[in-house]
Amino acid sequence: MSLLVIGTMAFDAIETPFGKTDKIIGGAATYISLAAANLYSNINIVSVVGDDFPQEFLQMLKNKSINLDGVQIKKGEKSFFWSGKYSQNLNERETLITELNVLQNFDPVIPDNYSETEYLMLGNLTPAVQMTVLNRLKTKPKLIVLDTMNFWMDIALDDLLAVIKKIDVLVINDEEARQLSGEYFLSKAAQKIFTMGPKYLIIKKGEHGAILFHGNDVFIAPALLLDDVKDPTGAGDSFAGGFIGYLAKTNDLSFENMKKAVVYGSATASFCVQAFGTNALINITQESITERINQFRALSSF
Amino acid sequence: MSLLVIGTMAFDAIETPFGKTDKIIGGAATYISLAAANLYSNINIVSVVGDDFPQEFLQMLKNKSINLDGVQIKKGEKSFFWSGKYSQNLNERETLITELNVLQNFDPVIPDNYSETEYLMLGNLTPAVQMTVLNRLKTKPKLIVLDTMNFWMDIALDDLLAVIKKIDVLVINDEEARQLSGEYFLSKAAQKIFTMGPKYLIIKKGEHGAILFHGNDVFIAPALLLDDVKDPTGAGDSFAGGFIGYLAKTNDLSFENMKKAVVYGSATASFCVQAFGTNALINITQESITERINQFRALSSF
Repeated sequence: MSLLVIGTMAFDAIETPFGKTDKIIGGAATYISLAAANLYSNINIVSVVGDDFPQEFLQMLKNKSINLDGVQIKKGEKSFFWSGKYSQNLNERETLITELNVLQNFDPVIPDNYSETEYLMLGNLTPAVQMTVLNRLKTKPKLIVLDTMNFWMDIALDDLLAVIKKIDVLVINDEEARQLSGEYFLSKAAQKIFTMGPKYLIIKKGEHGAILFHGNDVFIAPALLLDDVKDPTGAGDSFAGGFIGYLAKTNDLSFENMKKAVVYGSATASFCVQAFGTNALINITQESITERINQFRALSSF
Repeated sequence: MSLLVIGTMAFDAIETPFGKTDKIIGGAATYISLAAANLYSNINIVSVVGDDFPQEFLQMLKNKSINLDGVQIKKGEKSFFWSGKYSQNLNERETLITELNVLQNFDPVIPDNYSETEYLMLGNLTPAVQMTVLNRLKTKPKLIVLDTMNFWMDIALDDLLAVIKKIDVLVINDEEARQLSGEYFLSKAAQKIFTMGPKYLIIKKGEHGAILFHGNDVFIAPALLLDDVKDPTGAGDSFAGGFIGYLAKTNDLSFENMKKAVVYGSATASFCVQAFGTNALINITQESITERINQFRALSSF
């Protein structure tokens, strides 16, 4: 059994009110895998980078038992690069630079030794590429989770709807749920989105937590109240990685266990935002995760 | 032992995307008392109305064992009137008309038979009037809860800070907490506000729930996901009424019990918004409250 993660591996240059970075390592697949690796160990990535991507970082991922056989390294080409600047309250961000580079012609290849994928995480990426991955899998995974964003709803809605039809869990934020469904109230939005295919919907609300919907069941996880948020980049990916990592580890798709997975996702995201880039995710300990889970329980039980 | 509620009793004309009302009955003291009356029965009001305020409504309050000896009825004068219009998503509202009328010279009188006040709810009102009430009480209540809004922070901050110094629990929304403290992160805002006097802070976040702070203890209550919100008017007052009503009923100021009070406040507010004006609050049953409390437990436990 294994977890397959599809997504970008990239360089980011980030500016927040709390600091500014040069090119540091980012990308959805990077954040998702590092987040999941704190909970589960049989992780495979499918992605693409240029030969400018640091070997030491790839080695660090391998040391965490993350399999990179599906990561294509394009000779003489450059990795995907994104640069963005966050607003004073971190709730909005402006894209300054997007250089697709190797992503432009990304043709995902799934190595033979990835074939036993039971858990599939389709990280935020062109819906057409997400679909190609689904089509190239030899067996249907037990659970397919998809992360996407408003950008794809704006420019590739038909492609996106075609992928959404084939997945189990959709992970988006509240504004995206409203845009996709055309409904303002989130419970109505969820019911509309269920008619598009997914059986589960997770709505991320940033500092306001996350909501899990399944049929008429609802679970609301609060977000920890952090007073040292440095950089929100990768928070959504870390959430998704913690969520699917916990499910792959426990291999239990009951609603009760899904709730716990959402809390693990929230806890993982809470680490991510406390440092720039992937630094916090790389250094999480098991004890610190357990401590945060206990914090979640304390602040929501009555 | 009794609960004293100070606040407006008024007429509102409300427009939301779901309907429009002529003058209907509103006001902070009205909402708070009706909310608290579902949980506790020894409630006294101090307020002021004109002789245009309907006798039948006053009688209905009396029938719910709400004591109106402290409600001054000004002959030949008109009750406070507010008219407002909500935005499409109900998150913003525009004030169309404010007629202070009897409120202009409101001099609160506390009847002798109100003297054993253990629980005091200072509803949203001019800080100077809230202070007058505090000064006119013969004995110090066991718990003083204050609700206020950004309007008073803008035009009467010094008066407001003087009242805040003397209370136990401050109830405001997230933007108001940021304005009052000058801190963006809510946990930092809470610590700053504690230096101003209150030992407890409740931050209302509307559809995102409410947070209770006390020292380093934090409790986050989600909001129920309603898909039939009609009118948010009075939601904050209903929250405050449910909160203090539950505390007066149980007479237990432990943090554990305060958490429950916050959930009762949220449950009460969830009824309020499902109908225009006070209609939903008037018709709550004990069974329906219990049912909502169970819903809160189901959607937040993991």
